[in-house]
This record gives sequence, C-alpha cells and structure tokens, in this order.
Amino acid sequence: MSKLVVYMSMSLDGFIAAEGDDAPGRGLGVGGEPLHAWMAEGGEHGRGVNAGVLEEMMTSGAVIVGRRSFELANEWSGDHHDGVPIFVLTRQLPDHPAPGVAQYVTGIESTVAKAKAAAAAGDRDVMMHGAELVRALLAVGLVDELVISLVPVLLGRGRRLFDELPGEMRQLRLVESLDGEGVLHLRYQVC
Amino acid sequence: MSKLVVYMSMSLDGFIAAEGDDAPGRGLGVGGEPLHAWMAEGGEHGRGVNAGVLEEMMTSGAVIVGRRSFELANEWSGDHHDGVPIFVLTRQLPDHPAPGVAQYVTGIESTVAKAKAAAAAGDRDVMMHGAELVRALLAVGLVDELVISLVPVLLGRGRRLFDELPGEMRQLRLVESLDGEGVLHLRYQVC
Repeated sequence: MSKLVVYMSMSLDGFIAAEGDDAPGRGLGVGGEPLHAWMAEGGEHGRGVNAGVLEEMMTSGAVIVGRRSFELANEWSGDHHDGVPIFVLTRQLPDHPAPGVAQYVTGIESTVAKAKAAAAAGDRDVMMHGAELVRALLAVGLVDELVISLVPVLLGRGRRLFDELPGEMRQLRLVESLDGEGVLHLRYQVC
Repeated sequence: MSKLVVYMSMSLDGFIAAEGDDAPGRGLGVGGEPLHAWMAEGGEHGRGVNAGVLEEMMTSGAVIVGRRSFELANEWSGDHHDGVPIFVLTRQLPDHPAPGVAQYVTGIESTVAKAKAAAAAGDRDVMMHGAELVRALLAVGLVDELVISLVPVLLGRGRRLFDELPGEMRQLRLVESLDGEGVLHLRYQVC
C-alpha cells in the first residue's frame, strides 16, 4: 500500500518561504534560501543523511502538487524525477495541457487515489508539495506521513506551513529523527 | 557566565497554548493539555529524558517571566523552585508587592543583567517563561539558548511562540536533540 508523504523544509518558527514577491524560480521568497541549503551543502556525515532524504523523495512513484507550487517551480520542465506521473491539483482545468508527464487534475480524493495506484504499481510512495495542498489534505485525513526538515533559523515572517487547520487537533507519532548537516529531518506518522 | 535559556513546549504547528479563554491555572487554553503531558508521563527511558529536562529547569538560579504568564501560573504561589529570585517583567509597576521571592520589575535589559548576576552567584543559568517576553528578548538579542520541547501534535490554532519577529533573520545552532517519551527536546544556541 502506497503512502502519501509530505516533504517540507520549515524554519523553527514555522515558515516554508520568506515573504516577498515569490515568482517562478523563486518560490522561497526573498531571503528564504537557507531553507533549502541542506539540499546542496553538508559535511561528511551530514551530507550522507541529507542525500538519503533527497534520494527517498526522488524514488517516490508519483508526485502531487498544487498548481501554485508547480508554477513557482517552473513546472519542473515537465519532469520531477524519472518520468513518474505528476498530478497538478487545480480548482479549474486550464485550456492548455501540462508539460511532460504532468497532468492537471481536479478533486482531491480522486487524485490521491490515482496517484497511489500509480505509485503502488512500482511499490513506491507518493510525495506531495505545496503548503496549501498539505493543509487541504490534512483536513480530509489523507496524509500518511510528514517529513519535516527543520532548519535552525528564525525567519521572522513569511509563508507558514501550518496555518489555521480546520477541525480537531491531530495526534502525530515521531517515528524517525535524522540529524543532517544544518537540518533535522523529523518523520511523523499522522495518527 | 550565566546563560539566559528559554524553555517552551510547542506543538509541531507552532502553538504553545490552545485557543480559548486562558485564565489563572489554565494557561494552556482549552485543549492545550497535550503540550505539557510529557512533564507528567513517560516510559522507562523517555521518562528519564523528560525528567532530566525538568530537573535542568529546576536547577536554574533565577527566573524571568512576563506578568501575564506569571498570573496565568497563579504566581507559582510566590516560589517557582528552591526560592530562587523571580523577576516579573511588567510595563507598569503595580501598587502591591509580588508574593514570596517574586518581584515586579521594568526594563528588559536591566532585568536580564540582574537575573544573570543573581544566577551567576550560584554558577547557574537563568530560565525564562512567556511567549511575548521571549519575542521581546529575541528582538534585542538577549536570548542565549532556546530549549524547544516539540510535541507531536497539530493543535490547529492557538497562541504561537514565534509570531512576526522584528528585524533580520536569526541563525540558530542545534546543539542537542533528546528523544523523550512523547516529546523531542531540541536545544538551540542563538548565534
């Protein structure tokens, strides 16, 4: 059974992007670069840990992303990794097709089902991008795991991963804590 | 040299209290109890870790607290632990004295200096309580360490520890990560 796994880099004060005019190719806002520094840098041991987390993301069997995040990432030129299907959730289907292996879709629950089916064929998981989408999926109970790469910085302001969540409190279970160079990767199961 | 150490229990989504009518004796709001559960419960190993963090707090040589937090905590009946001095920061001195070893004070920088001097006499650190005060002290660069007890729960809403911080981004350094029962204690130095 495939899992739906959220991967997000977050500052200790809860931001996934600095404020400022984000734009395609600049999804971290102005000054948010430290959030993703761990993906490029690293010491001997830490680099191995960070590389392992990245590799896990890059062996997922399908990608779900919100349209805004997709556009900010320059649509990954139509291929996130290895040609696995990319499901781009949008409220309204555009009149142009998505590039490469990406496809525009509507409907959260049917999309999750499709992505899981695609990933399960290769015995892999589904990875997910985009804060707004994460909140929407948490709200309907469809997130299986959160991998929060907690960056030791206080950005002070910006876009939050967790804003007001509708509904009840959600219990998590910390199942892994990996100490990477310049970042702590925390894996939570959503109970 | 004494350090000023902030100890706070925070949900993964950044809250230190649930929303709702907090009141003396109910500083966690309505439904915020999971944030402090680790202080009472714990498995064999985890309890040892959690007890160690509590013990560290309780061996500090002085306490600084904001007036609101002090009142929500029922003024600790005038003694936080072992009769160490309690400095209650307030904007305006009330016309009644504080109970026990507590004293009302004004002026952030002079209070930190006084508390550090009191704690240094016993070769101990200063502990600090209260989110609003933490932000004020971070803003003027007076916090030496943050010990965030990260609770695996999404509260959804409530009072945040880190709200908009004035000024520049602050770099932290993770110096310790302790896996307690039901909580992860993360110690950051403020660079």
